[in-house]
Amino acid sequence: MSFDLAAYLADLRREVDAALDRHLPPKDAPPAAIHEAMRYSVFAGGKRLRPILVIAGAEAVRGRVEEGGTLNRILPTACALELIHTYSLVHDDLPAMDDDDYRRGRLTNHKVFGEAIAILAGDALLTLAFGLLAEHASLEVVKEVARAAGTFGMIGGQVVDIQSEGKSVDAETLEYIHRHKTAALIRASLVSGAMLAGASPAIFKVIGEAGTHLGLAFQIVDDILDVEGSLEELGKTAGSDRRKKKVTYPEHFGLETSRIKAKSLIEDAKAALRPLGPRAEPIRALADFIFQRRS
Amino acid sequence: MSFDLAAYLADLRREVDAALDRHLPPKDAPPAAIHEAMRYSVFAGGKRLRPILVIAGAEAVRGRVEEGGTLNRILPTACALELIHTYSLVHDDLPAMDDDDYRRGRLTNHKVFGEAIAILAGDALLTLAFGLLAEHASLEVVKEVARAAGTFGMIGGQVVDIQSEGKSVDAETLEYIHRHKTAALIRASLVSGAMLAGASPAIFKVIGEAGTHLGLAFQIVDDILDVEGSLEELGKTAGSDRRKKKVTYPEHFGLETSRIKAKSLIEDAKAALRPLGPRAEPIRALADFIFQRRS
Repeated sequence: MSFDLAAYLADLRREVDAALDRHLPPKDAPPAAIHEAMRYSVFAGGKRLRPILVIAGAEAVRGRVEEGGTLNRILPTACALELIHTYSLVHDDLPAMDDDDYRRGRLTNHKVFGEAIAILAGDALLTLAFGLLAEHASLEVVKEVARAAGTFGMIGGQVVDIQSEGKSVDAETLEYIHRHKTAALIRASLVSGAMLAGASPAIFKVIGEAGTHLGLAFQIVDDILDVEGSLEELGKTAGSDRRKKKVTYPEHFGLETSRIKAKSLIEDAKAALRPLGPRAEPIRALADFIFQRRS
Repeated sequence: MSFDLAAYLADLRREVDAALDRHLPPKDAPPAAIHEAMRYSVFAGGKRLRPILVIAGAEAVRGRVEEGGTLNRILPTACALELIHTYSLVHDDLPAMDDDDYRRGRLTNHKVFGEAIAILAGDALLTLAFGLLAEHASLEVVKEVARAAGTFGMIGGQVVDIQSEGKSVDAETLEYIHRHKTAALIRASLVSGAMLAGASPAIFKVIGEAGTHLGLAFQIVDDILDVEGSLEELGKTAGSDRRKKKVTYPEHFGLETSRIKAKSLIEDAKAALRPLGPRAEPIRALADFIFQRRS
């Protein structure tokens, strides 16, 4: 069973980028400043992992989506998840939050457009995401995404992350932060795709489980890369977590244990996906990608 | 035809407040800081105009909603509109935006909880609003509200408002700001209720038109009160628009012309509602309330 992940990622990134361009208001639509700011951060070179997981989640239920019909039905939802991810980055980078000047090697939104527009651009990306879901997905998907992005999901994780800065926290709190700040939206991406593809409750459960494992693994690898990576690879200064006194896996468990933990979560995800057979091949390949990525 | 507006408002405020309390996570649900911050601003003594307009919009289609069944079906949507209004206030008050220390006579969210939590509380209120709509309303309502709250609605108006500070703008820009910053969400409140009540396209159109008139009138009266009102009545310092060099109707047209303009918008709203007969009596009474209110 050979699966060409590089080609898969390249194809889908192209599709996702084109769909994002279609669904975002044009740069010059008034008021232009906000649309320019939204586009600046959306087209800042993201990996498009979340939208690709939406598509892979659908494929795990229905088999490979062809270009055209099926893919076009899923793309708006894929875009919505990327918009929510982008809004969270724009707000996280604000001076009152992580106070970051660079993201993916470019100036952060508020450094270019000012804080007021950056706050509003984040708000607007979140609002547009729900508009897209309402137009192209289902009430079930809107509910799932709202839960994953809210205070019992991503925002909750962000709150505890901020509150934990500079403190020594236990493993439980660390897992809470990762599970909510990052894994909730990654899980929601996979299950949104599965929902749109009409997953049965049993398949939905399996994919949700795999999503949580992948999300936790993703954040641990992120923490590892922050220690190891160079500015060139990460687009931000390595060691920034440490400087900000963020609680991280490597800080808590050391690099080697963190790597083992991430690897074992990847294996857990694959084990969860076993009942789905070859249809889950894209998710399995994405799991390896999450572990092996260098940025 | 006598309609007891005071009793109507008091009854519905009680219902709305109780529903908000049910739909917001408890103050002590972890992470408690964010839930406390959300509740702080939601229960800061708002007039609940938008949720009451949702209910009045439904009544204009179906007749008076009784306590129980019908009202309970509409209340979550009414709450969602109030949460979106509240999120917009929390973000508007931030130092990078209007930099307000007081709102309705109490310290603003960021003065109590810090800027990071205030940003996240706003994000969380917006996210929860869409979750509520997905759970209790319809895709049509989610779409309508997302449009009204986005860059072609409320956020767009806010952007132009910020960009116009300290400048001399033409009447067209002033109307753009009012129509988007304030009227879009007030219109969305009325039409969301009408949609839930199953309005025909013709009735939907009439109610939407009335909503825009009411929304514009509301903002003009707001501007007038800012010039005339006392700290006690407004809960904020009178003349704050002028100090912030906001563009306002009184600034542009003078107080007397502004009053006439507001009154004529109220009459336009009532004229638009004529085809609906006595069922629109609550909206008509609310129109008078919008014109006569002192805070």
